[in-house]
Amino acid sequence: MERIEGLEEYPVILDHPISWGDMDAFAHVNNTVYFRHFENARIAYFEALGLTDYMKETGVGPILASTRCRFRIPLTYPDRVWIGGRVTDLEEDRFTMLYRVVSQQHGKVAAEGEGKIVIYDYRAGAKAPVPDSIREAIGRLEGNRGE
Amino acid sequence: MERIEGLEEYPVILDHPISWGDMDAFAHVNNTVYFRHFENARIAYFEALGLTDYMKETGVGPILASTRCRFRIPLTYPDRVWIGGRVTDLEEDRFTMLYRVVSQQHGKVAAEGEGKIVIYDYRAGAKAPVPDSIREAIGRLEGNRGE
Amino acid sequence: MERIEGLEEYPVILDHPISWGDMDAFAHVNNTVYFRHFENARIAYFEALGLTDYMKETGVGPILASTRCRFRIPLTYPDRVWIGGRVTDLEEDRFTMLYRVVSQQHGKVAAEGEGKIVIYDYRAGAKAPVPDSIREAIGRLEGNRGE
Amino acid sequence: MERIEGLEEYPVILDHPISWGDMDAFAHVNNTVYFRHFENARIAYFEALGLTDYMKETGVGPILASTRCRFRIPLTYPDRVWIGGRVTDLEEDRFTMLYRVVSQQHGKVAAEGEGKIVIYDYRAGAKAPVPDSIREAIGRLEGNRGE
Repeated sequence: MERIEGLEEYPVILDHPISWGDMDAFAHVNNTVYFRHFENARIAYFEALGLTDYMKETGVGPILASTRCRFRIPLTYPDRVWIGGRVTDLEEDRFTMLYRVVSQQHGKVAAEGEGKIVIYDYRAGAKAPVPDSIREAIGRLEGNRGE
Repeated sequence: MERIEGLEEYPVILDHPISWGDMDAFAHVNNTVYFRHFENARIAYFEALGLTDYMKETGVGPILASTRCRFRIPLTYPDRVWIGGRVTDLEEDRFTMLYRVVSQQHGKVAAEGEGKIVIYDYRAGAKAPVPDSIREAIGRLEGNRGE
Repeated sequence: MERIEGLEEYPVILDHPISWGDMDAFAHVNNTVYFRHFENARIAYFEALGLTDYMKETGVGPILASTRCRFRIPLTYPDRVWIGGRVTDLEEDRFTMLYRVVSQQHGKVAAEGEGKIVIYDYRAGAKAPVPDSIREAIGRLEGNRGE
Repeated sequence: MERIEGLEEYPVILDHPISWGDMDAFAHVNNTVYFRHFENARIAYFEALGLTDYMKETGVGPILASTRCRFRIPLTYPDRVWIGGRVTDLEEDRFTMLYRVVSQQHGKVAAEGEGKIVIYDYRAGAKAPVPDSIREAIGRLEGNRGE
Protein backbone atom coordinates (compact mmCIF):
# COMPACT_ATOMS: atom_id res chain seq x y z
CA MET A 1 0.00 0.00 0.00
CA GLU A 2 1.26 3.46 -0.80
CA ARG A 3 2.22 5.65 2.14
CA ILE A 4 -0.68 7.67 3.41
CA GLU A 5 0.11 11.01 4.96
CA GLY A 6 -0.43 10.87 8.69
CA LEU A 7 -0.45 7.06 8.77
CA GLU A 8 3.24 6.31 8.05
CA GLU A 9 3.63 4.67 11.47
CA TYR A 10 0.48 2.55 11.21
CA PRO A 11 1.01 -1.07 10.07
CA VAL A 12 -2.72 -1.77 9.74
CA ILE A 13 -4.74 0.60 7.54
CA LEU A 14 -8.33 0.14 6.41
CA ASP A 15 -10.23 1.96 3.67
CA HIS A 16 -13.84 2.51 4.72
CA PRO A 17 -16.74 4.43 3.15
CA ILE A 18 -18.80 6.93 5.16
CA SER A 19 -22.48 6.03 5.07
CA TRP A 20 -25.10 8.78 4.86
CA GLY A 21 -26.71 7.22 7.93
CA ASP A 22 -23.49 7.71 9.94
CA MET A 23 -24.52 11.33 10.26
CA ASP A 24 -26.71 12.56 13.11
CA ALA A 25 -29.12 15.49 13.32
CA PHE A 26 -26.19 17.94 13.28
CA ALA A 27 -25.37 16.54 9.78
CA HIS A 28 -21.94 15.39 11.00
CA VAL A 29 -20.77 11.82 11.47
CA ASN A 30 -21.89 10.87 14.98
CA ASN A 31 -19.23 10.39 17.67
CA THR A 32 -20.12 6.72 18.21
CA VAL A 33 -19.15 5.92 14.60
CA TYR A 34 -15.50 6.79 15.29
CA PHE A 35 -15.38 4.02 17.89
CA ARG A 36 -16.76 1.64 15.29
CA HIS A 37 -13.86 2.70 13.04
CA PHE A 38 -11.42 2.09 15.89
CA GLU A 39 -12.98 -1.34 16.43
CA ASN A 40 -12.53 -2.20 12.78
CA ALA A 41 -8.82 -1.33 13.01
CA ARG A 42 -8.51 -3.27 16.28
CA ILE A 43 -10.12 -6.41 14.88
CA ALA A 44 -8.03 -6.22 11.69
CA TYR A 45 -4.90 -5.83 13.80
CA PHE A 46 -5.86 -8.83 15.97
CA GLU A 47 -6.34 -10.90 12.83
CA ALA A 48 -2.94 -9.83 11.51
CA LEU A 49 -1.46 -10.98 14.85
CA GLY A 50 -3.25 -14.31 14.79
CA LEU A 51 -4.89 -13.31 18.08
CA THR A 52 -8.40 -14.14 16.92
CA ASP A 53 -7.41 -17.73 16.11
CA TYR A 54 -5.29 -17.98 19.27
CA MET A 55 -8.34 -17.06 21.35
CA LYS A 56 -10.49 -19.73 19.71
CA GLU A 57 -7.87 -22.37 20.46
CA THR A 58 -6.83 -21.38 23.97
CA GLY A 59 -9.53 -19.20 25.50
CA VAL A 60 -6.93 -16.49 26.03
CA GLY A 61 -7.89 -13.29 24.32
CA PRO A 62 -8.22 -9.50 24.42
CA ILE A 63 -10.53 -7.26 26.43
CA LEU A 64 -11.02 -3.59 25.67
CA ALA A 65 -10.46 -1.99 29.07
CA SER A 66 -10.79 1.64 28.04
CA THR A 67 -10.83 3.78 24.93
CA ARG A 68 -10.86 7.41 23.97
CA CYS A 69 -11.13 9.68 20.96
CA ARG A 70 -10.16 13.24 20.16
CA PHE A 71 -12.22 14.76 17.35
CA ARG A 72 -10.31 17.13 15.08
CA ILE A 73 -12.49 17.92 12.07
CA PRO A 74 -16.07 16.83 11.44
CA LEU A 75 -16.72 14.12 8.88
CA THR A 76 -19.64 14.32 6.48
CA TYR A 77 -21.14 12.13 3.78
CA PRO A 78 -19.94 11.61 1.10
CA ASP A 79 -16.38 10.75 2.06
CA ARG A 80 -14.11 7.77 2.69
CA VAL A 81 -11.72 7.32 5.59
CA TRP A 82 -8.40 5.63 6.12
CA ILE A 83 -8.39 4.00 9.55
CA GLY A 84 -4.97 3.27 11.03
CA GLY A 85 -4.12 1.01 13.98
CA ARG A 86 -0.80 0.45 15.75
CA VAL A 87 0.43 -0.94 19.06
CA THR A 88 2.52 0.92 21.62
CA ASP A 89 3.42 0.26 25.24
CA LEU A 90 3.52 -3.50 25.17
CA GLU A 91 3.55 -4.59 28.82
CA GLU A 92 3.32 -7.89 30.70
CA ASP A 93 -0.43 -8.43 30.43
CA ARG A 94 -1.60 -5.51 28.31
CA PHE A 95 -0.83 -3.15 25.46
CA THR A 96 -2.08 0.14 24.06
CA MET A 97 -3.42 0.64 20.55
CA LEU A 98 -3.36 3.99 18.80
CA TYR A 99 -5.96 4.77 16.16
CA ARG A 100 -6.13 7.47 13.55
CA VAL A 101 -8.98 8.29 11.15
CA VAL A 102 -8.05 10.27 8.03
CA SER A 103 -10.65 11.93 5.79
CA GLN A 104 -9.80 11.10 2.17
CA GLN A 105 -11.80 14.06 0.90
CA HIS A 106 -9.98 16.56 3.11
CA GLY A 107 -6.62 14.78 3.33
CA LYS A 108 -6.64 15.52 7.05
CA VAL A 109 -6.72 13.63 10.31
CA ALA A 110 -10.36 13.68 11.42
CA ALA A 111 -9.84 11.94 14.75
CA GLU A 112 -7.31 10.06 16.77
CA GLY A 113 -7.66 7.84 19.76
CA GLU A 114 -6.41 4.94 21.73
CA GLY A 115 -7.54 1.74 23.40
CA LYS A 116 -6.12 -0.17 26.33
CA ILE A 117 -6.17 -3.91 25.64
CA VAL A 118 -5.86 -6.39 28.50
CA ILE A 119 -5.18 -10.08 27.88
CA TYR A 120 -7.58 -12.35 29.69
CA ASP A 121 -7.76 -16.10 30.20
CA TYR A 122 -11.49 -16.70 29.84
CA ARG A 123 -11.21 -20.32 31.06
CA ALA A 124 -9.20 -19.42 34.17
CA GLY A 125 -11.16 -16.20 34.73
CA ALA A 126 -8.04 -14.11 35.27
CA LYS A 127 -5.67 -11.75 33.52
CA ALA A 128 -2.93 -13.48 31.55
CA PRO A 129 0.43 -12.48 30.10
CA VAL A 130 0.57 -11.46 26.44
CA PRO A 131 1.40 -14.81 24.74
CA ASP A 132 4.93 -15.03 23.30
CA SER A 133 3.69 -15.72 19.78
CA ILE A 134 1.49 -12.62 19.92
CA ARG A 135 4.32 -10.56 21.38
CA GLU A 136 6.56 -11.61 18.50
CA ALA A 137 3.84 -10.91 15.95
CA ILE A 138 3.42 -7.40 17.33
CA GLY A 139 7.18 -6.92 17.04
CA ARG A 140 7.16 -8.02 13.41
CA LEU A 141 4.11 -5.92 12.55
CA GLU A 142 5.47 -2.79 14.21
CA GLY A 143 8.83 -3.39 12.53
CA ASN A 144 10.94 -3.19 15.64
CA ARG A 145 11.02 0.53 15.13
CA GLY A 146 13.00 1.19 18.27
CA GLU A 147 16.05 -0.69 16.95
CA MET B 1 -50.78 -2.62 31.99
CA GLU B 2 -53.47 -0.16 30.98
CA ARG B 3 -54.86 -0.46 27.47
CA ILE B 4 -52.91 1.61 24.96
CA GLU B 5 -54.85 2.95 22.02
CA GLY B 6 -53.82 1.13 18.87
CA LEU B 7 -52.20 -1.73 20.79
CA GLU B 8 -55.29 -3.44 22.26
CA GLU B 9 -54.52 -6.61 20.26
CA TYR B 10 -50.83 -6.76 21.20
CA PRO B 11 -49.97 -9.06 24.12
CA VAL B 12 -46.34 -7.86 24.29
CA ILE B 13 -45.79 -4.11 24.68
CA LEU B 14 -42.50 -2.37 25.43
CA ASP B 15 -41.89 1.20 26.55
CA HIS B 16 -38.73 2.57 24.93
CA PRO B 17 -37.12 6.04 24.89
CA ILE B 18 -36.07 7.70 21.64
CA SER B 19 -32.37 8.62 21.73
CA TRP B 20 -31.21 11.87 20.15
CA GLY B 21 -28.72 9.79 18.16
CA ASP B 22 -31.57 7.76 16.62
CA MET B 23 -32.11 10.74 14.34
CA ASP B 24 -30.31 11.07 11.04
CA ALA B 25 -29.34 14.16 9.03
CA PHE B 26 -33.00 14.79 8.16
CA ALA B 27 -33.60 15.21 11.94
CA HIS B 28 -36.05 12.29 11.94
CA VAL B 29 -35.54 8.90 13.54
CA ASN B 30 -33.71 6.83 10.91
CA ASN B 31 -35.56 3.97 9.24
CA THR B 32 -33.15 1.32 10.57
CA VAL B 33 -34.15 2.20 14.16
CA TYR B 34 -37.71 0.97 13.57
CA PHE B 35 -36.34 -2.49 12.83
CA ARG B 36 -34.41 -2.34 16.10
CA HIS B 37 -37.75 -1.59 17.82
CA PHE B 38 -39.35 -4.54 16.02
CA GLU B 39 -36.44 -6.73 17.14
CA ASN B 40 -36.95 -5.67 20.74
CA ALA B 41 -40.61 -6.68 20.55
CA ARG B 42 -39.68 -9.96 18.83
CA ILE B 43 -37.10 -10.92 21.45
CA ALA B 44 -39.45 -9.98 24.31
CA TYR B 45 -42.16 -12.09 22.70
CA PHE B 46 -39.79 -15.05 22.31
CA GLU B 47 -38.88 -14.78 25.98
CA ALA B 48 -42.55 -14.70 26.95
CA LEU B 49 -42.98 -17.91 24.91
CA GLY B 50 -39.99 -19.62 26.46
CA LEU B 51 -38.52 -19.88 22.94
CA THR B 52 -35.15 -18.44 23.95
CA ASP B 53 -34.65 -21.12 26.61
CA TYR B 54 -36.06 -23.83 24.32
CA MET B 55 -33.45 -22.93 21.70
CA LYS B 56 -30.60 -23.19 24.22
CA GLU B 57 -31.76 -26.66 25.29
CA THR B 58 -32.67 -28.17 21.93
CA GLY B 59 -30.94 -26.23 19.18
CA VAL B 60 -34.37 -25.55 17.64
CA GLY B 61 -35.06 -21.87 17.30
CA PRO B 62 -36.33 -18.98 15.21
CA ILE B 63 -34.93 -17.38 12.05
CA LEU B 64 -36.12 -14.04 10.74
CA ALA B 65 -36.87 -14.85 7.10
CA SER B 66 -38.22 -11.46 6.05
CA THR B 67 -39.46 -8.24 7.55
CA ARG B 68 -41.08 -5.02 6.48
CA CYS B 69 -42.14 -1.65 7.81
CA ARG B 70 -44.62 1.02 6.76
CA PHE B 71 -43.75 4.47 8.10
CA ARG B 72 -46.76 6.61 9.03
CA ILE B 73 -45.50 9.66 10.89
CA PRO B 74 -41.88 10.69 11.53
CA LEU B 75 -40.48 10.26 15.03
CA THR B 76 -38.22 12.87 16.59
CA TYR B 77 -36.30 13.28 19.83
CA PRO B 78 -37.50 13.79 22.52
CA ASP B 79 -40.23 11.15 22.59
CA ARG B 80 -40.94 7.66 23.87
CA VAL B 81 -42.55 4.82 21.95
CA TRP B 82 -44.78 1.91 22.81
CA ILE B 83 -43.68 -1.10 20.75
CA GLY B 84 -46.25 -3.85 20.30
CA GLY B 85 -45.72 -7.41 19.07
CA ARG B 86 -48.24 -10.15 18.30
CA VAL B 87 -48.35 -13.41 16.36
CA THR B 88 -50.69 -14.22 13.50
CA ASP B 89 -50.79 -16.97 10.88
CA LEU B 90 -49.31 -19.78 12.90
CA GLU B 91 -48.41 -22.48 10.37
CA GLU B 92 -46.61 -25.85 10.48
CA ASP B 93 -43.02 -24.53 10.54
CA ARG B 94 -43.47 -20.76 10.65
CA PHE B 95 -45.49 -17.85 11.95
CA THR B 96 -45.93 -14.15 11.28
CA MET B 97 -45.36 -11.40 13.81
CA LEU B 98 -47.04 -8.00 13.56
CA TYR B 99 -45.34 -4.97 15.06
CA ARG B 100 -46.66 -1.54 15.85
CA VAL B 101 -44.73 1.52 17.10
CA VAL B 102 -46.78 4.22 18.81
CA SER B 103 -45.42 7.70 19.54
CA GLN B 104 -46.29 8.61 23.13
CA GLN B 105 -45.88 12.32 22.40
CA HIS B 106 -48.29 12.27 19.47
CA GLY B 107 -50.54 9.42 20.64
CA LYS B 108 -50.37 8.05 17.11
CA VAL B 109 -49.10 4.97 15.32
CA ALA B 110 -45.71 5.96 13.91
CA ALA B 111 -45.04 2.71 12.05
CA GLU B 112 -46.29 -0.80 11.64
CA GLY B 113 -44.67 -3.84 10.20
CA GLU B 114 -44.31 -7.56 10.21
CA GLY B 115 -41.74 -10.32 10.31
CA LYS B 116 -41.89 -13.88 9.00
CA ILE B 117 -40.34 -16.28 11.51
CA VAL B 118 -39.24 -19.76 10.43
CA ILE B 119 -38.39 -22.47 12.96
CA TYR B 120 -35.05 -24.09 12.30
CA ASP B 121 -33.27 -27.09 13.81
CA TYR B 122 -29.70 -25.78 13.96
CA ARG B 123 -28.30 -29.23 14.82
CA ALA B 124 -30.09 -31.02 12.00
CA GLY B 125 -29.58 -28.10 9.61
CA ALA B 126 -33.19 -28.11 8.45
CA LYS B 127 -36.54 -26.43 8.99
CA ALA B 128 -38.53 -27.86 11.88
CA PRO B 129 -42.16 -27.74 13.02
CA VAL B 130 -43.17 -25.14 15.60
CA PRO B 131 -42.73 -27.11 18.88
CA ASP B 132 -46.00 -27.99 20.64
CA SER B 133 -45.02 -26.17 23.84
CA ILE B 134 -44.33 -23.00 21.84
CA ARG B 135 -47.54 -23.41 19.87
CA GLU B 136 -49.48 -23.63 23.13
CA ALA B 137 -47.65 -20.66 24.60
CA ILE B 138 -48.57 -18.58 21.54
CA GLY B 139 -52.19 -19.63 22.03
CA ARG B 140 -52.17 -18.57 25.66
CA LEU B 141 -50.42 -15.28 24.92
CA GLU B 142 -52.75 -14.38 22.06
CA GLY B 143 -55.70 -15.39 24.24
CA ASN B 144 -57.46 -17.55 21.65
CA ARG B 145 -59.08 -14.39 20.43
CA GLY B 146 -60.92 -16.13 17.62
CA GLU B 147 -63.00 -18.18 20.04
CA MET C 1 -17.65 -1.70 -13.75
CA GLU C 2 -17.61 -5.35 -14.67
CA ARG C 3 -20.90 -7.21 -14.60
CA ILE C 4 -21.64 -8.73 -11.21
CA GLU C 5 -23.70 -11.89 -11.21
CA GLY C 6 -27.13 -11.18 -9.82
CA LEU C 7 -26.77 -7.41 -10.30
CA GLU C 8 -26.90 -7.16 -14.13
CA GLU C 9 -30.11 -5.12 -13.94
CA TYR C 10 -28.88 -2.71 -11.25
CA PRO C 11 -27.52 0.63 -12.52
CA VAL C 12 -26.22 1.67 -9.08
CA ILE C 13 -23.84 -0.74 -7.33
CA LEU C 14 -21.83 -0.05 -4.17
CA ASP C 15 -18.93 -2.03 -2.72
CA HIS C 16 -19.12 -2.05 1.08
CA PRO C 17 -17.11 -3.84 3.78
CA ILE C 18 -18.80 -5.82 6.55
CA SER C 19 -17.72 -4.55 9.97
CA TRP C 20 -17.17 -7.00 12.82
CA GLY C 21 -19.57 -4.89 14.87
CA ASP C 22 -22.34 -5.42 12.29
CA MET C 23 -22.78 -8.84 13.85
CA ASP C 24 -25.13 -9.43 16.76
CA ALA C 25 -25.06 -12.05 19.54
CA PHE C 26 -25.97 -14.78 17.02
CA ALA C 27 -22.67 -13.95 15.24
CA HIS C 28 -24.55 -13.01 12.06
CA VAL C 29 -24.93 -9.55 10.56
CA ASN C 30 -27.93 -8.03 12.32
CA ASN C 31 -31.12 -7.47 10.30
CA THR C 32 -31.03 -3.69 10.79
CA VAL C 33 -27.70 -3.50 8.92
CA TYR C 34 -29.35 -4.64 5.67
CA PHE C 35 -31.58 -1.58 5.79
CA ARG C 36 -28.49 0.57 6.19
CA HIS C 37 -27.14 -1.08 3.03
CA PHE C 38 -30.42 -0.37 1.25
CA GLU C 39 -30.20 3.24 2.43
CA ASN C 40 -26.70 3.56 1.03
CA ALA C 41 -27.94 2.34 -2.37
CA ARG C 42 -30.95 4.64 -2.19
CA ILE C 43 -28.88 7.73 -1.39
CA ALA C 44 -26.33 6.89 -4.10
CA TYR C 45 -29.16 6.46 -6.58
CA PHE C 46 -30.71 9.80 -5.57
CA GLU C 47 -27.35 11.48 -6.10
CA ALA C 48 -27.02 9.87 -9.54
CA LEU C 49 -30.46 11.31 -10.35
CA GLY C 50 -29.62 14.76 -9.08
CA LEU C 51 -32.51 14.39 -6.62
CA THR C 52 -30.43 15.44 -3.61
CA ASP C 53 -29.53 18.76 -5.24
CA TYR C 54 -33.06 19.20 -6.58
CA MET C 55 -34.42 18.89 -3.05
CA LYS C 56 -32.03 21.52 -1.71
CA GLU C 57 -33.11 23.97 -4.41
CA THR C 58 -36.84 23.36 -4.47
CA GLY C 59 -37.88 21.71 -1.22
CA VAL C 60 -39.32 18.83 -3.26
CA GLY C 61 -37.78 15.53 -2.28
CA PRO C 62 -38.21 11.86 -1.46
CA ILE C 63 -39.82 10.18 1.55
CA LEU C 64 -39.36 6.50 2.32
CA ALA C 65 -42.95 5.33 2.80
CA SER C 66 -42.25 1.65 3.36
CA THR C 67 -39.47 -0.87 2.98
CA ARG C 68 -38.91 -4.60 3.26
CA CYS C 69 -36.20 -7.19 3.14
CA ARG C 70 -36.03 -10.92 2.49
CA PHE C 71 -32.98 -12.57 4.05
CA ARG C 72 -31.51 -15.43 1.99
CA ILE C 73 -28.16 -16.37 3.52
CA PRO C 74 -26.57 -15.01 6.70
CA LEU C 75 -23.65 -12.60 6.37
CA THR C 76 -20.65 -12.81 8.66
CA TYR C 77 -17.45 -10.86 9.21
CA PRO C 78 -15.09 -10.85 7.34
CA ASP C 79 -16.80 -10.25 4.02
CA ARG C 80 -17.66 -7.46 1.60
CA VAL C 81 -20.99 -6.88 -0.12
CA TRP C 82 -22.12 -5.49 -3.42
CA ILE C 83 -25.26 -3.43 -2.88
CA GLY C 84 -27.44 -2.87 -5.94
CA GLY C 85 -30.27 -0.36 -6.38
CA ARG C 86 -32.71 0.11 -9.25
CA VAL C 87 -36.07 1.78 -9.85
CA THR C 88 -39.25 0.08 -11.03
CA ASP C 89 -42.89 1.13 -11.17
CA LEU C 90 -42.44 4.81 -11.79
CA GLU C 91 -45.84 6.36 -11.10
CA GLU C 92 -47.26 9.90 -10.92
CA ASP C 93 -46.01 10.80 -7.43
CA ARG C 94 -43.99 7.74 -6.38
CA PHE C 95 -41.68 4.95 -7.48
CA THR C 96 -40.38 1.67 -6.16
CA MET C 97 -36.71 0.84 -5.61
CA LEU C 98 -35.40 -2.71 -5.62
CA TYR C 99 -32.30 -3.55 -3.60
CA ARG C 100 -30.04 -6.55 -3.68
CA VAL C 101 -27.11 -7.37 -1.36
CA VAL C 102 -24.54 -9.87 -2.71
CA SER C 103 -21.93 -11.52 -0.49
CA GLN C 104 -18.57 -11.27 -2.26
CA GLN C 105 -17.17 -14.16 -0.23
CA HIS C 106 -20.00 -16.51 -1.12
CA GLY C 107 -20.84 -15.10 -4.55
CA LYS C 108 -24.49 -15.31 -3.59
CA VAL C 109 -27.42 -12.99 -3.02
CA ALA C 110 -27.61 -12.51 0.75
CA ALA C 111 -30.76 -10.41 0.77
CA GLU C 112 -33.13 -8.54 -1.46
CA GLY C 113 -35.70 -5.92 -0.71
CA GLU C 114 -37.58 -2.92 -1.86
CA GLY C 115 -38.58 0.56 -0.81
CA LYS C 116 -41.55 2.70 -1.78
CA ILE C 117 -40.50 6.29 -2.39
CA VAL C 118 -43.04 9.10 -2.37
CA ILE C 119 -42.23 12.58 -3.66
CA TYR C 120 -43.14 15.32 -1.23
CA ASP C 121 -43.18 19.09 -1.44
CA TYR C 122 -41.87 20.03 1.99
CA ARG C 123 -42.73 23.72 1.52
CA ALA C 124 -46.31 23.04 0.42
CA GLY C 125 -46.69 20.16 2.88
CA ALA C 126 -48.21 17.84 0.27
CA LYS C 127 -47.35 15.03 -2.12
CA ALA C 128 -45.95 16.18 -5.43
CA PRO C 129 -45.48 14.66 -8.88
CA VAL C 130 -42.10 13.15 -9.72
CA PRO C 131 -40.31 16.13 -11.36
CA ASP C 132 -39.76 15.78 -15.11
CA SER C 133 -35.97 16.12 -14.81
CA ILE C 134 -35.91 13.30 -12.24
CA ARG C 135 -38.23 11.18 -14.37
CA GLU C 136 -35.88 11.59 -17.33
CA ALA C 137 -32.83 10.84 -15.20
CA ILE C 138 -34.45 7.59 -14.01
CA GLY C 139 -35.13 6.69 -17.64
CA ARG C 140 -31.52 7.29 -18.61
CA LEU C 141 -30.17 5.41 -15.60
CA GLU C 142 -32.42 2.42 -16.09
CA GLY C 143 -31.58 2.45 -19.81
CA ASN C 144 -35.12 2.37 -21.09
CA ARG C 145 -34.90 -1.39 -20.82
CA GLY C 146 -38.53 -1.90 -21.88
CA GLU C 147 -37.89 -0.52 -25.38
CA MET D 1 -35.82 10.68 42.21
CA GLU D 2 -34.49 8.37 44.89
CA ARG D 3 -30.73 8.31 45.43
CA ILE D 4 -29.01 5.74 43.26
CA GLU D 5 -25.85 4.22 44.63
CA GLY D 6 -22.87 5.47 42.68
CA LEU D 7 -24.83 8.38 41.17
CA GLU D 8 -25.30 10.60 44.27
CA GLU D 9 -23.23 13.36 42.63
CA TYR D 10 -25.01 13.24 39.26
CA PRO D 11 -27.80 15.83 38.78
CA VAL D 12 -28.97 14.27 35.50
CA ILE D 13 -29.87 10.58 35.56
CA LEU D 14 -31.58 8.61 32.79
CA ASP D 15 -33.19 5.17 32.95
CA HIS D 16 -32.54 3.28 29.72
CA PRO D 17 -33.26 -0.31 28.62
CA ILE D 18 -30.56 -2.50 27.09
CA SER D 19 -31.64 -3.79 23.68
CA TRP D 20 -30.75 -7.33 22.62
CA GLY D 21 -29.22 -5.82 19.49
CA ASP D 22 -26.83 -3.72 21.61
CA MET D 23 -24.80 -6.90 22.01
CA ASP D 24 -22.09 -7.88 19.55
CA ALA D 25 -20.72 -11.29 18.57
CA PHE D 26 -19.06 -11.63 22.01
CA ALA D 27 -22.60 -11.46 23.49
CA HIS D 28 -21.69 -8.33 25.46
CA VAL D 29 -22.99 -4.82 24.88
CA ASN D 30 -20.71 -3.34 22.25
CA ASN D 31 -18.32 -0.56 23.26
CA THR D 32 -19.91 1.98 20.88
CA VAL D 33 -23.22 1.71 22.78
CA TYR D 34 -21.67 3.22 25.91
CA PHE D 35 -20.91 6.38 23.96
CA ARG D 36 -24.55 6.48 22.88
CA HIS D 37 -25.47 6.31 26.58
CA PHE D 38 -23.05 9.16 27.30
CA GLU D 39 -24.60 11.15 24.47
CA ASN D 40 -28.06 10.64 25.92
CA ALA D 41 -26.88 12.00 29.28
CA ARG D 42 -25.10 14.89 27.54
CA ILE D 43 -28.16 15.91 25.52
CA ALA D 44 -30.45 15.62 28.57
CA TYR D 45 -28.01 17.78 30.54
CA PHE D 46 -27.90 20.39 27.75
CA GLU D 47 -31.69 20.50 27.74
CA ALA D 48 -31.75 20.95 31.51
CA LEU D 49 -29.34 23.89 31.03
CA GLY D 50 -31.39 25.45 28.26
CA LEU D 51 -28.34 25.10 26.01
CA THR D 52 -30.26 23.44 23.19
CA ASP D 53 -32.68 26.38 22.95
CA TYR D 54 -29.85 28.88 23.41
CA MET D 55 -28.06 27.37 20.42
CA LYS D 56 -31.14 27.64 18.21
CA GLU D 57 -31.53 31.33 19.10
CA THR D 58 -27.92 32.47 19.01
CA GLY D 59 -25.89 29.98 16.97
CA VAL D 60 -23.65 29.50 20.01
CA GLY D 61 -23.53 25.90 21.12
CA PRO D 62 -21.51 22.91 22.26
CA ILE D 63 -18.96 20.78 20.40
CA LEU D 64 -17.75 17.44 21.70
CA ALA D 65 -13.98 17.82 21.47
CA SER D 66 -12.98 14.49 22.99
CA THR D 67 -14.48 11.65 24.97
CA ARG D 68 -13.39 8.51 26.72
CA CYS D 69 -14.76 5.49 28.52
CA ARG D 70 -13.44 2.99 31.01
CA PHE D 71 -15.29 -0.33 30.95
CA ARG D 72 -15.68 -2.00 34.35
CA ILE D 73 -18.11 -4.90 33.97
CA PRO D 74 -19.71 -6.19 30.78
CA LEU D 75 -23.39 -5.45 30.17
CA THR D 76 -25.71 -8.05 28.70
CA TYR D 77 -29.33 -8.22 27.64
CA PRO D 78 -31.70 -8.24 29.50
CA ASP D 79 -30.82 -5.34 31.79
CA ARG D 80 -31.52 -1.64 32.28
CA VAL D 81 -28.99 1.07 33.01
CA TRP D 82 -28.95 4.30 34.95
CA ILE D 83 -26.92 6.86 33.03
CA GLY D 84 -25.57 9.77 35.03
CA GLY D 85 -24.14 13.05 33.75
CA ARG D 86 -22.49 15.91 35.65
CA VAL D 87 -20.26 18.88 34.86
CA THR D 88 -16.84 19.55 36.34
CA ASP D 89 -14.01 21.91 35.45
CA LEU D 90 -16.03 24.80 34.12
CA GLU D 91 -13.54 27.03 32.31
CA GLU D 92 -13.73 30.16 30.14
CA ASP D 93 -14.78 28.49 26.87
CA ARG D 94 -15.19 24.85 27.85
CA PHE D 95 -16.24 22.35 30.50
CA THR D 96 -15.87 18.68 31.25
CA MET D 97 -18.73 16.24 31.66
CA LEU D 98 -18.45 13.06 33.68
CA TYR D 99 -20.61 10.09 32.81
CA ARG D 100 -21.42 6.94 34.73
CA VAL D 101 -23.41 3.90 33.55
CA VAL D 102 -24.85 1.68 36.30
CA SER D 103 -26.25 -1.79 35.63
CA GLN D 104 -29.59 -2.12 37.40
CA GLN D 105 -29.39 -5.90 37.34
CA HIS D 106 -25.96 -6.00 38.98
CA GLY D 107 -26.23 -2.81 41.03
CA LYS D 108 -22.73 -1.94 39.87
CA VAL D 109 -21.00 0.72 37.84
CA ALA D 110 -20.56 -0.80 34.37
CA ALA D 111 -18.60 2.06 32.88
CA GLU D 112 -17.53 5.61 33.50
CA GLY D 113 -16.22 8.24 31.19
CA GLU D 114 -15.92 11.87 30.35
CA GLY D 115 -16.36 14.33 27.53
CA LYS D 116 -14.71 17.67 26.89
CA ILE D 117 -17.24 20.20 25.65
CA VAL D 118 -16.12 23.37 23.86
CA ILE D 119 -18.47 26.28 23.26
CA TYR D 120 -18.49 27.43 19.66
CA ASP D 121 -20.07 30.37 17.88
CA TYR D 122 -21.21 28.73 14.67
CA ARG D 123 -22.05 32.07 13.03
CA ALA D 124 -18.68 33.65 13.85
CA GLY D 125 -16.80 30.40 13.23
CA ALA D 126 -14.80 30.66 16.45
CA LYS D 127 -14.68 29.45 20.02
CA ALA D 128 -16.85 31.45 22.41
CA PRO D 129 -17.07 31.89 26.16
CA VAL D 130 -19.57 29.79 28.09
CA PRO D 131 -22.65 32.10 28.15
CA ASP D 132 -23.46 33.56 31.57
CA SER D 133 -26.97 32.10 31.63
CA ILE D 134 -25.53 28.64 30.93
CA ARG D 135 -22.82 29.12 33.52
CA GLU D 136 -25.46 29.97 36.11
CA ALA D 137 -27.64 27.05 35.09
CA ILE D 138 -24.67 24.69 35.56
CA GLY D 139 -24.15 26.18 39.02
CA ARG D 140 -27.77 25.62 39.97
CA LEU D 141 -27.83 22.08 38.55
CA GLU D 142 -24.61 21.07 40.28
CA GLY D 143 -25.88 22.64 43.49
CA ASN D 144 -22.81 24.74 44.24
CA ARG D 145 -21.40 21.68 45.95
CA GLY D 146 -18.09 23.36 46.67
CA GLU D 147 -19.73 25.90 48.95
